[in-house]
Formats: sequence, C-alpha cells, structure tokens
Amino acid sequence: MVHITRRERFNAAHRLFRSEWDDEKNLEIFGKCSNPNWHGHNYELFVTVKGKLNPETGFVLNLKELSRIIQTKIIQKVDHKNINIEVDFMQGKLASSENLAIAIWEELLPEIVKLGVQLHCVKLFETENNFVEYYGDGY
Amino acid sequence: MVHITRRERFNAAHRLFRSEWDDEKNLEIFGKCSNPNWHGHNYELFVTVKGKLNPETGFVLNLKELSRIIQTKIIQKVDHKNINIEVDFMQGKLASSENLAIAIWEELLPEIVKLGVQLHCVKLFETENNFVEYYGDGY
Amino acid sequence: MVHITRRERFNAAHRLFRSEWDDEKNLEIFGKCSNPNWHGHNYELFVTVKGKLNPETGFVLNLKELSRIIQTKIIQKVDHKNINIEVDFMQGKLASSENLAIAIWEELLPEIVKLGVQLHCVKLFETENNFVEYYGDGY
Amino acid sequence: MVHITRRERFNAAHRLFRSEWDDEKNLEIFGKCSNPNWHGHNYELFVTVKGKLNPETGFVLNLKELSRIIQTKIIQKVDHKNINIEVDFMQGKLASSENLAIAIWEELLPEIVKLGVQLHCVKLFETENNFVEYYGDGY
Amino acid sequence: MVHITRRERFNAAHRLFRSEWDDEKNLEIFGKCSNPNWHGHNYELFVTVKGKLNPETGFVLNLKELSRIIQTKIIQKVDHKNINIEVDFMQGKLASSENLAIAIWEELLPEIVKLGVQLHCVKLFETENNFVEYYGDGY
Amino acid sequence: MVHITRRERFNAAHRLFRSEWDDEKNLEIFGKCSNPNWHGHNYELFVTVKGKLNPETGFVLNLKELSRIIQTKIIQKVDHKNINIEVDFMQGKLASSENLAIAIWEELLPEIVKLGVQLHCVKLFETENNFVEYYGDGY
Repeated sequence: MVHITRRERFNAAHRLFRSEWDDEKNLEIFGKCSNPNWHGHNYELFVTVKGKLNPETGFVLNLKELSRIIQTKIIQKVDHKNINIEVDFMQGKLASSENLAIAIWEELLPEIVKLGVQLHCVKLFETENNFVEYYGDGY
Repeated sequence: MVHITRRERFNAAHRLFRSEWDDEKNLEIFGKCSNPNWHGHNYELFVTVKGKLNPETGFVLNLKELSRIIQTKIIQKVDHKNINIEVDFMQGKLASSENLAIAIWEELLPEIVKLGVQLHCVKLFETENNFVEYYGDGY
Repeated sequence: MVHITRRERFNAAHRLFRSEWDDEKNLEIFGKCSNPNWHGHNYELFVTVKGKLNPETGFVLNLKELSRIIQTKIIQKVDHKNINIEVDFMQGKLASSENLAIAIWEELLPEIVKLGVQLHCVKLFETENNFVEYYGDGY
Repeated sequence: MVHITRRERFNAAHRLFRSEWDDEKNLEIFGKCSNPNWHGHNYELFVTVKGKLNPETGFVLNLKELSRIIQTKIIQKVDHKNINIEVDFMQGKLASSENLAIAIWEELLPEIVKLGVQLHCVKLFETENNFVEYYGDGY
Repeated sequence: MVHITRRERFNAAHRLFRSEWDDEKNLEIFGKCSNPNWHGHNYELFVTVKGKLNPETGFVLNLKELSRIIQTKIIQKVDHKNINIEVDFMQGKLASSENLAIAIWEELLPEIVKLGVQLHCVKLFETENNFVEYYGDGY
Repeated sequence: MVHITRRERFNAAHRLFRSEWDDEKNLEIFGKCSNPNWHGHNYELFVTVKGKLNPETGFVLNLKELSRIIQTKIIQKVDHKNINIEVDFMQGKLASSENLAIAIWEELLPEIVKLGVQLHCVKLFETENNFVEYYGDGY
C-alpha cells in the first residue's frame, strides 16, 4: 500500500454568512470573512489516494488520470468562481473550508473508486496559516 | 545605503472588466478573470525601502513602523474586501495587479518619505506564478 | 470528523545541555547545539485539532479562537525569549524540539478540550530540514 | 512516542519504461516520462522515525545520526546519478516514485532499527505537485 | 513602467562536460555534475518583462500571452528532455545554468519584442540553493 | 554578464541593544528584540556575484568555490553562535540585520574579488517577513 498525492490550485471568491442572520450577526460570528462584497483566496488542494502498486507500471495509479479527475470534477467548477453562488456542489452549504473539503471529497470519491484505489485524504489550504483535512466519514 | 523589505498579506476579491464593455467582450479580453460573480486571491505584498543606517539603532528604519504604515494605509483597506467595490484608492481603475501595485505605491509614498527613507519597490504576488513590481514613475 | 490546523511562528534562543555535564561532555553529545552562548531558531508551530462540524457555522471551531489560545498560552511565552531560562513550561527540561513539542501539547490540551474538540497533533519545525510531531501519550 | 523527520535532497535522472515494450508502447503508458534520453528531478526526501524519548538527551534519536544514515545508504547512491542505470537498490525495478520510496524504506529499515527506533514514513517529492508516502508493508 | 513576471517549470536531464576532455578531467572540473549517465533537475524559470500599462486593460501585457510564448518556445523543448542531446537551442553549448539562461533569453527576445514590451530578466533556479539571472548583453 | 546566487543558512542568537542604554531604554527603542536573555533566528543568506562566462566551463564561477568561501568566511563563524558575543566581524556593532549584511559583504568582498568576479548583492532573511539587501557602498 502506497499513498500518492496530487496538488492542484484554484482562485475563488467566497463569503461566510447565514442568510437568515443579518449582517451584524454574521459579522459577530464570522468576522471579516462575512464581508457582504466577498473576498477570496488562492486555495491549494492536495488529494491523497492509496492502493497497491500495479506491477506493470510501478504506479498506484497514473497521476495524469488523478489530475484529470480533480480538474474535471473540481477545479473547472471552482477556479475563478464565486463558491457561494456558482459552485453546484456547494449549494445550500456554508462556504467554510471544512464544508468545501467535505464536498470535494464527495465529488471525487465515486471517480477515485472507479480507478481501483482508495481516496485517503482531501487537504485544503485557505491561507499559508490555515488548512483543513478530511479523511471520510468512517474516520 | 541598505534596502529593507517587509512582507504583508491580504485576501481579497476582484474582477477584471470594463463597465462599458459587455460580458462577452470582457470575457474575450480578460478571460475567466472577468467572471461577473468575482474571484479572489491571497495577495502577497513586499514593500522595499532604502536609506542610510541610523548609527544609533543600526536600522534603515524601524520595521515595526514600516509594518504599521502598510497595515494602516493598505492592508486594512484591502484585506477581506472587494477591490473593485470597496477600496477607495482603486476607484475608477481596472483591478489588475499592475494598477494595484501602482496605487499601493502612491498610497505608501507620502508616509514613507516622512520616515526619511526612499520607497524603492512595491512587489505584489497574485499567485505563485504571477507577480508585478513597480519602482515609481521615475524609473 | 474534520482536522483543522493553525500555523503560528516564534523566534527564540536555546541551548542543548545538561548542567551536570561539563562543556566538553555536552559538546560531545549535543555538538554545536550545546554552544554555551546560545543560538536560536525561527520555529514554526502547526497545531491540529479535530472534531465534528458545528452545523450553524460550518466550523470545527473558530480558528480565531484557536489562534488566540496558541498566542496566549505559547507564543507570548516563547517568542523572542530564551527557552532554557525564560519559559515557565520548559523549566527543568532539556530544550530539545521533542520536549518543546510535548510541553506545548500539555499547555494547549486543557484549553483545546474546553472548546469541545480534540487536540490531534503538535508539529514543530526547528529548521526547514528538521521537525517533530507529537500526538499525545495515548498514541 | 514522538515522531521526528529529517529532510534530505538529491538530483537525479530517470526514465519510466519497460524494456520489453517498444518506445511507442512506453510512450502510450508513461507519456513524456518515458523519454529515451532521460529527464530528471530535484527529489525531496522526508524520513520520519518514531520512538520514546531518551531522558538523558531529550531526543528520540540524534538527528545527525539519522542524517548520516540517509546520506550513506541513500543520498550518496542516488544524488547526481541515473536511477535506472546506477542505483544498486533500484536494479530490475521501474523507476517510479512509488518504487523508489519503497526501496528507500527497505534500505533504511535495518539501519533505523539498530538505533532502537521505528521507521514510520518515507515521503518523496518528485515535483512540487506530486509526492508519495510509504509506511511499510504492514500498513 | 511596470515589471511583470511569469513562473514556468520544467524537469530535464543534463550533464556538464566537454567532449574533448576525458571523464577524469571532466570530473576534476565539473565534479559529480559531469556524471556520464546524466542527472537532472526540476528547473524553475522566472521571465520578467517591463513596459507601460495599456490603459484599456490595465496590463503591461496579457500574462496568458507571455505564458504561451514561454511554453511554446522553451518549455515544450526542454521539459522531460535531455538538455545536452535534445534541445535545439543548446546544441554545441555546455549545459550550465548560465548558458541555459542566456539561450532562453535569446529564444524569447524576438517574441517578447513583438508584444511591444521589453524583456528584462531571465531567472533560472537549478536547485533551491542555486540560481542565475541574465539581463541581456547590454547590461 | 550573468548573475549567479548561492543560498546558505545559519542559526544564531542575537539581541538588539546599546550597552550605554539601560534595559528600559533598549526596550523602548528595540522592543522585544532587546530581550536581555537573547532570542534567535534561522537566517537565510543569498550571495549574488556577477561576471562574464568562462567559455571553457560555461560558469561565471564554480559555485562550489563560492559556497566554500561563504562557509569558511561566514557560516563557520555565525552558525550556532551568539552574534553579539562570538562573531569577530560583528564586534562593536549593533547586531541588526542591516549591520550583519554589511559586515558579511565586507568579509566576502576580498575573497570574491580574487575569483575574478564582482560581488553584487548580499541578501539576508531574518524571518519570512523581513529581509535586507546590501549592494556595497558605491550603490
């Protein structure tokens, strides 16, 4: 069993807020992250899968394939987008890094499973000082 | 003469577009950076000043002072903001990295001069792959 | 269960030595790290906590709260200090990265528990080439 | 139990291919990584060991010792070398990052065990976007 | 006048040697970099151009255009290649970082000039510890 | 003319203070950097030289030679040392980054000149947020 990780990046706008709260309450809970006019980040996404080596290729899986899946299922939907408004898999969810990591996991999981490997971790940096990791709901 | 540089960071939303162009024309010229619902970045700002050493302190200037100026004049105005809508010194300007670096220079210059040193360079990273540098209009 | 990590930094002096050994013995065991006149590092500290998401906020915990705890309990005590002499929670301990990580864990644990989340890992970089990780004594 | 990690680096040439396949088949499976004239990387290697603290030194182990082992058993054999042709412990194996990480684990394991600590992880970066981790065959 | 920089990366094999010298002489002068079986690097290339802002776009130039030129004229020719054998613009030259940076400058210059901006600097990292910069022969 | 840069690192303790001032005055001017029990940093040093290429080697100079000079004249004297107390070339000077960069320039200059190249810049990072650059007194 070997773990292999691919890094991809995306730049997006978002806002932390609950629509049923007014701006004052949102500001109290979410601070400047609730700015009604949005702010944004250069997100860094690390996707780790694990599996046995294919003896023919010496690969867990072909990283080009993993990169293609991440690009198709995630990056094309979030890069240069507004996470709150434009990302189908984030509809109805608070645009926190935690929720974003879980949603990315759920988007990737069916595609990763088809490759015959296990999805191990979705790690998402919001800034150089803050990141989240999600290992699935069985963890 | 010694150069000294302070790094500060801010996270902001922006959009590249001209209001007199329609979305199609904006898309043609600015690509995905023209997304009407905004996107955003973790900007990294490096401000370099130069001057003679103060023999009492061994400093060009006290970096705490430089940091305070950058925070007050720039970071508090752009961090967790929408550059197009909310930043006074960017009103009426395209929110490109180039224009942002020039505007930051112009905001900082009067304060830096008061410290008895010269503003040498404003360097602004938009992503790990793209950055601009501005050395003033006499360059 | 989601993991979330906050990075904080501090700059400190230290020395590896045992007072019951003479300088020669200390030099033999600890090498240049035993220099009697001290040396120092820019330490990077990553604190990882884990827990269930608060459905109201989409957070494991508010990172500002985690940052405040790390600042109050750790950074204010170690930043620009001499770890051997001035840090209360390192008194009587060898100032190795291992001991420092364990002591940081023990300082943080009661505060983290109060937030209703679990402390998962304290990771401490001494240089770009060396770091330690501590996961608690049950690991 | 504390984990401690040492980073070492090496620059090497390699090629992904199977000698029983022709260049066309190799190109189909391995893409540009199969270039018959080789290509290369700045590899970054992180070796993590774990163990109890030595109460006399406050160390899991002396990092100089760990560094010496990695240098002697790995770096001197791979740095500025061709991994396919010149590295004894890679003979007969596809020069993938996965195989390289496993082989490094196997080279290091007997030496690490002698130090009275456990080898926990071999992490190998091929590029800033791709890395593998190996935790041993019991994982 | 604003400077703008684009980073691109390539992974390549090379060897430092003079064919009229034997391996011993090459080893004496070039050390392990003369290994006859090649070694390689993850090169990082920073290309800086400078010019006046286009008032319509707020750009010195469109970075997509700059990226496309670097990809077409440089990266496609050097990435996953052997610099000594396969790169047309390095034929007959020692594959040092200095010569590579100068050759990249000469390849890019005619294309950059067509965009109405000036080529300012080609900066090439061979490792995290070593890089060269070339500012043209008029410098 | 090509510029070439070598990075070296050192870990040292220091303190900013003037012995003719009391601790209170030192604290007022230098803040926490005046801590009487010292603090320390992982310094990163970038030394840039420039010159014409040697047509035989394709080098400005052999980087091993440059590294050896920096190691011998600087790193061996400052690494794991107390800059205020133990570094001959800092005696009688305030241990600011500015003074340290100038002193490093002066130590290196005679050795660099012997190699037939020019010393262009000494760049010294004290933290990831602060660095100084010195280009000599003719600048």
